[in-house]
Amino acid sequence: MSEDLLARPHHDGSRLYVDNQAPRLGETVSVRVRVPHAAGITEVHVRQLWDAEPTFAAAAVERHGDVEDWWTAEVTCHNPVTPYRFLLQGADGEYLWLNGTGLHRRDVPDNSDFRLVTYPEPPAWALDSVVYQVFPDRFARSADAPPVAEIAPDWAVPAGWDDPVDARSRAVVARQLFGGDLDGIREHLDHLERLGVTVLYLTPFFPARSNHRYDASSFDAVDPLLGGTEALERLVAEAHRRGLRVIGDLTTNHTGDAHEWFVAAQAGPDAPERDFYFFHDDGDFESWLGVHSLPKLNHASAALRDAFFDRPDAPVRRWLTGEQPLDGWRVDVANMTGRRGAQDVNHAVADHMRATLDGLDGDKLLVGEHVHDHSADAQGSGWHGVMNYSGFTRPVWTWLRDKDFAPNFLGAPLAVPRLGGESVAETIDEFGSLDPWRSRTFSFTLTGSHDTTRIRTLVGDDPAMVAVAAALLLTMPGIPMITYGDEIGMPGEFGEDGRRPMPWDEHRWDAGTFATYQELIAARRELEPLRHGGIRWVSAGTDSLTFVRETATGAVLVHCARAAHEPVTVPATQLPGIAQGRLVSASAAKIDADDETVTLQADGAGYALYSWGEL
Amino acid sequence: MSEDLLARPHHDGSRLYVDNQAPRLGETVSVRVRVPHAAGITEVHVRQLWDAEPTFAAAAVERHGDVEDWWTAEVTCHNPVTPYRFLLQGADGEYLWLNGTGLHRRDVPDNSDFRLVTYPEPPAWALDSVVYQVFPDRFARSADAPPVAEIAPDWAVPAGWDDPVDARSRAVVARQLFGGDLDGIREHLDHLERLGVTVLYLTPFFPARSNHRYDASSFDAVDPLLGGTEALERLVAEAHRRGLRVIGDLTTNHTGDAHEWFVAAQAGPDAPERDFYFFHDDGDFESWLGVHSLPKLNHASAALRDAFFDRPDAPVRRWLTGEQPLDGWRVDVANMTGRRGAQDVNHAVADHMRATLDGLDGDKLLVGEHVHDHSADAQGSGWHGVMNYSGFTRPVWTWLRDKDFAPNFLGAPLAVPRLGGESVAETIDEFGSLDPWRSRTFSFTLTGSHDTTRIRTLVGDDPAMVAVAAALLLTMPGIPMITYGDEIGMPGEFGEDGRRPMPWDEHRWDAGTFATYQELIAARRELEPLRHGGIRWVSAGTDSLTFVRETATGAVLVHCARAAHEPVTVPATQLPGIAQGRLVSASAAKIDADDETVTLQADGAGYALYSWGEL
Repeated sequence: MSEDLLARPHHDGSRLYVDNQAPRLGETVSVRVRVPHAAGITEVHVRQLWDAEPTFAAAAVERHGDVEDWWTAEVTCHNPVTPYRFLLQGADGEYLWLNGTGLHRRDVPDNSDFRLVTYPEPPAWALDSVVYQVFPDRFARSADAPPVAEIAPDWAVPAGWDDPVDARSRAVVARQLFGGDLDGIREHLDHLERLGVTVLYLTPFFPARSNHRYDASSFDAVDPLLGGTEALERLVAEAHRRGLRVIGDLTTNHTGDAHEWFVAAQAGPDAPERDFYFFHDDGDFESWLGVHSLPKLNHASAALRDAFFDRPDAPVRRWLTGEQPLDGWRVDVANMTGRRGAQDVNHAVADHMRATLDGLDGDKLLVGEHVHDHSADAQGSGWHGVMNYSGFTRPVWTWLRDKDFAPNFLGAPLAVPRLGGESVAETIDEFGSLDPWRSRTFSFTLTGSHDTTRIRTLVGDDPAMVAVAAALLLTMPGIPMITYGDEIGMPGEFGEDGRRPMPWDEHRWDAGTFATYQELIAARRELEPLRHGGIRWVSAGTDSLTFVRETATGAVLVHCARAAHEPVTVPATQLPGIAQGRLVSASAAKIDADDETVTLQADGAGYALYSWGEL
Repeated sequence: MSEDLLARPHHDGSRLYVDNQAPRLGETVSVRVRVPHAAGITEVHVRQLWDAEPTFAAAAVERHGDVEDWWTAEVTCHNPVTPYRFLLQGADGEYLWLNGTGLHRRDVPDNSDFRLVTYPEPPAWALDSVVYQVFPDRFARSADAPPVAEIAPDWAVPAGWDDPVDARSRAVVARQLFGGDLDGIREHLDHLERLGVTVLYLTPFFPARSNHRYDASSFDAVDPLLGGTEALERLVAEAHRRGLRVIGDLTTNHTGDAHEWFVAAQAGPDAPERDFYFFHDDGDFESWLGVHSLPKLNHASAALRDAFFDRPDAPVRRWLTGEQPLDGWRVDVANMTGRRGAQDVNHAVADHMRATLDGLDGDKLLVGEHVHDHSADAQGSGWHGVMNYSGFTRPVWTWLRDKDFAPNFLGAPLAVPRLGGESVAETIDEFGSLDPWRSRTFSFTLTGSHDTTRIRTLVGDDPAMVAVAAALLLTMPGIPMITYGDEIGMPGEFGEDGRRPMPWDEHRWDAGTFATYQELIAARRELEPLRHGGIRWVSAGTDSLTFVRETATGAVLVHCARAAHEPVTVPATQLPGIAQGRLVSASAAKIDADDETVTLQADGAGYALYSWGEL
């Protein structure tokens, strides 16, 4: 990317460019392009696909400015997903395309087209959220929790809260029981409030035969080890009283082999639950990646769909209704759900689940797990969004990874590369361009999770680098998700290793890291552009990344550096009003602005947030 | 693209790299990557998606060579379409991805992954074909044809064979009847044989109320103006006798408003054919792009599907069976078929049509019209291939377009740009990467059609440039389609203007152009690499494009230039055996090779083909 990024024409799906964020099928929507005079564009058209056939409409200048013009065109939502992009006449006589990856002098395919979607609107609260992921066995033990050794079932190996995680093998690591419980979480909601997060996301609370509980033995109850259903109700009630939302974690791809459905199915070929799973003639069955304790569900079965989605007590429904309803689901292994060989009912499952949630009272959020390129499944009819590993986590990791610590990303045989900021910006743009803006912004951004290396370890145990990661997390488009412990600098070389019990002795916290998270979360909650703004790159260098989030009434400039770098200057003209702004938050980096020049600096790894316009 | 293109690791879907070109579901296939030592790669893995989840397998060196190693890995066809790509360990410690657009140092989405498909194998004959498109009203009048004025129906305006096309308006141009007929085509099959083509593709022959006949009034008969069903049978019999295949043109998206189904449907809401179409409450109906004479078919109607596909006399079947069966269908407006607003049964229609063809005797070809990015519809379950406008025609046009003649491509509001060869190669690679190799190679490549500007006019009436276009057409992957008249240098500024009656007085032909097409078609038919080889770029410059087509036993180097250029030299080491090769065909360009260096030259627009290895 060149240094003159702000001189490029720009459009994204945010309110600044698309008035109607929730169009209905058939509705016509005004879309805007800002075209700096420096780009030398003489004509603008919009190309939209209707029934897979392109049609063009001319754009007109809506507002002439000193440095740029704003063009407007009309796009009709002819289909549930209507792709569009812009065709610009360059001064040299040749045309340029503007799509989600920027400007192109040659023809490009449709996959990075912008998109309008007419599916029912996702819950508005989600865009204003900061999510906090809790692994119930490891967050907190309630004051009244019985000793772990007393309650540990046959599969479990009891552990003391201060014991290390025993990750010698996959079998061992899943059995170590630290005895965290839901009342323990409830008793520590102050921590969430103090941190500033607004949504509690619980990894599974169903009874199971492992500490991660992704091998549910029932979807009808809360694990008694966690305090049972009543403890969940107490937790949700208290969270809601405090204005926090709570979402659960449901495994649609498989159950545990101790699940009541699977046990019933094993009775024989005539069992009513038999076709909930994929049994072979020899009695063997399909399972998640060949792990036999996790038999795969067959969503082509009408009986399973009824049991899973439709019955009043179906798990998708029952935990989101009643006196203390959850506010949504994170869906485990969403990518593999409903897919097996020649069968692919994945979108039908996602659509069914979405329709079920849309039919319930309260605005429920539905986010699918997708560790890789999720774009085929994230067009917005099913999941509102996904866990955005591919478009956020991985590019951020490639930029912030320590020189000497190179983890392999979730199953990849080679270590995550270490790349410059230009590549990182391109990767974020390319993956981002494949999703409708709505799906992108309703997806969880994350710098790590219970399944990955912890950010503290990834960056080489450097709090300054953790701060950069947190700054990216809390200022980029998407719903930031923080996994418990990241905010206190908890380490972890890989997923299981990072699932350490939360130390409640604050002397064991990195107080500086906690303060940084607090400050950045507060900034996100205060500054609307960080939640609803578009995004334009201002500068992308090897060691620094700078972008601006903008709404019609305000802007926030974000400068992040992974190392000290030469000052970067950009003309202030493309950022009108910036000279009247203020520094919101900074660590080792600096933004200075006058009427002519914006200067971006960093003495080492750090970040700076600079805000202007109405608030 | 750099000058050292051959030093890059390479894979494509051709036999040289993928042994099994017709794997079945569940089967494991060996895939190869050639890795020049110059690339400094130390480790190779293959990443494949199974049920949308990546899994990795290590590759091993199968063959050490002096300049390159060949690595092999196993990919299992877990799904009907199994995407895969390679992960390479670079000498600098960072990894690289190799997918259909080449090498990438950063993470990339899945859309350019290579793909194995397990759908039933397309007809083998198609890959060895050269297709000749004939517009029946304009190719030839039979010796016994009655005067046009005598037979012209009410809608038609009779024209003499030497009259100019009257393209004053869309209404007028569709009514001008020149009176070409099917017996006329039969009487001129010598021309096809002399040219060397192997497949006759007829645009619609159904009765209609226009000269293009895309507004069929019945699918049950051949237009009497063309000689009726018996004339078609005579034509097909004679073509088959000569070893030529014949394919028809079926409009799945709409019929004419005079169609017997539509007439019946208009009887009222209770008519059995009513739901074949989309009638609104006020009696109005959906039509193709709002053209009321072309009412849109509703493929969600079970009755329509029965009438169209399933009944023994359904059009999809009946013309491909019987005494004189056609060899396949080109499907008109394939992209819009089955799509309307919230309804999208496009893939169901394509799959239904494919299953119907697969169930018939004889190997039938099914090619969909798709003027734009077709990748979403070309994964291979429905159409065998498409008309590859986006991945071939448009990039070739942007390279060969005359400086002073810039047509707008089919509905685009701005003129086709004129770009250098680097952009053209990138565009071909990017669009090509979105299709499985099988879909790409079973798609029609074309430099123009009855719907576009003629190539002769596009290149500025320059026969040397037409030769370059023909060279690209007949040497790149895909099934070359020549629209009648291109081979004699027929001009035409846009689709209708190019639909000129074929002059049978050879003095009106460009004899040089005809000889060029003959020679290039013969080369394609003689040289297996041009039909079955992989493709590697050798050089891409502003004014020249060079690539090599390779099989296990032979190679053809193709050098094309749009203008005189400085000689390009490439090391001969990456093209083993080239020094023993021979020049096959050339015009104004030159290829010289010894053991060390290959030299590519051109004094002006031209091409050269150079062949080596077993033939």
